[in-house]
Amino acid sequence: MKEVNDKTKVRRVPKRGIYDQEEIYKILDNDSTCTIGFVHRGVPVVIPTIYGRHENKIYLHGAASSRMIKNLEEGFDMCFCMHRVTGLVLANSAFHHSMNYESVVIFGKAKKVEGKEANLFALKVVSDQVLKGRWEEVRQPSDKELKATTVLELEINEASAKVRNEGCHNDKEDYELDIWTGIVPIEKVYQNPIDDDKMRNGIPVSPSVKNIYNNGIT
Amino acid sequence: MKEVNDKTKVRRVPKRGIYDQEEIYKILDNDSTCTIGFVHRGVPVVIPTIYGRHENKIYLHGAASSRMIKNLEEGFDMCFCMHRVTGLVLANSAFHHSMNYESVVIFGKAKKVEGKEANLFALKVVSDQVLKGRWEEVRQPSDKELKATTVLELEINEASAKVRNEGCHNDKEDYELDIWTGIVPIEKVYQNPIDDDKMRNGIPVSPSVKNIYNNGIT
Repeated sequence: MKEVNDKTKVRRVPKRGIYDQEEIYKILDNDSTCTIGFVHRGVPVVIPTIYGRHENKIYLHGAASSRMIKNLEEGFDMCFCMHRVTGLVLANSAFHHSMNYESVVIFGKAKKVEGKEANLFALKVVSDQVLKGRWEEVRQPSDKELKATTVLELEINEASAKVRNEGCHNDKEDYELDIWTGIVPIEKVYQNPIDDDKMRNGIPVSPSVKNIYNNGIT
Repeated sequence: MKEVNDKTKVRRVPKRGIYDQEEIYKILDNDSTCTIGFVHRGVPVVIPTIYGRHENKIYLHGAASSRMIKNLEEGFDMCFCMHRVTGLVLANSAFHHSMNYESVVIFGKAKKVEGKEANLFALKVVSDQVLKGRWEEVRQPSDKELKATTVLELEINEASAKVRNEGCHNDKEDYELDIWTGIVPIEKVYQNPIDDDKMRNGIPVSPSVKNIYNNGIT
């Protein structure tokens, strides 16, 4: 990864900036959706999509006919952004309200992944990021399906993360007010799986799906 | 709102495109964080932030010294993007995996909100979007705090939404495989509030906070 530079430096609240590669990986691995920025006909465009990370690469995929995919494949400058809210920070003054979050921003140009094996590998990375173990359970992509899909890779070279994970920063004198202050953690929770209504009866929920429930399916 | 145009038209899976203003408002009101894209020195930059919607406007705010805020205030072209994942779509083939989600993309230029009353109103809109009722409970911004904050508004004129909220689209022949298929809904869940450790004892959790728990605080 490149040294922090003018592009990747965290401007607001610089102490929250993280430039350590392993820390950035850890944050990236906590989610699977991002937004991608690129410039189309002079105008910035931001589109949400899913991603996977393996070693120092982000993998993205989409329909080969997608405008975003085609632009990125051509080598447009892009900006990858993921963010995940982890809590509400409820101060006793309006001004000191905040959120706890983790975010990563990566600058660069994407490159098309070439070759069947490399494409399958990258698609498995994306699939694992969403639901570990699912890839091995399902029908693998046909050549026709692979042809309809473009996979892109982005090196994690110009990147920074920003994290807030702490309590409130209230003004000292505001503690004299009779106002509750604290944080409310937020979690992503998987509800019980719902069978596809065209599926044959008696097929049990897959292990990959069972694994996401800490306390089992209720 | 403008008619759908070349910028706002949903390209991939056009049947998922939504251009109805009220529908777009409803989706925007389901979350409070977004990413903002703009072009800085020729390079697209995407930064996460919080927002509020009132009528046909998105309000954003930040430190007056923030690079993003200063660029947007100058009238840089921008792209607002919010997305919220509502479920995993687990097909019986790798290819047909998907996610359920709601997203909104808005193009335009922001404008600085001028005047104390208008600023306070816009900040309340942002605060309400994160936690309804909190604004009225807390110490209001001082003139100094207001001066340190810039509030921007973006008209929801060039906008589109995209929603997927349905089951799997498996190939007919794949139903013969012994593979579980279905969806896993995802919800954002607020954990119990945690008191600020410098708060005086005996101050009860605020009504705005109690209100976010469907089943009460456990």
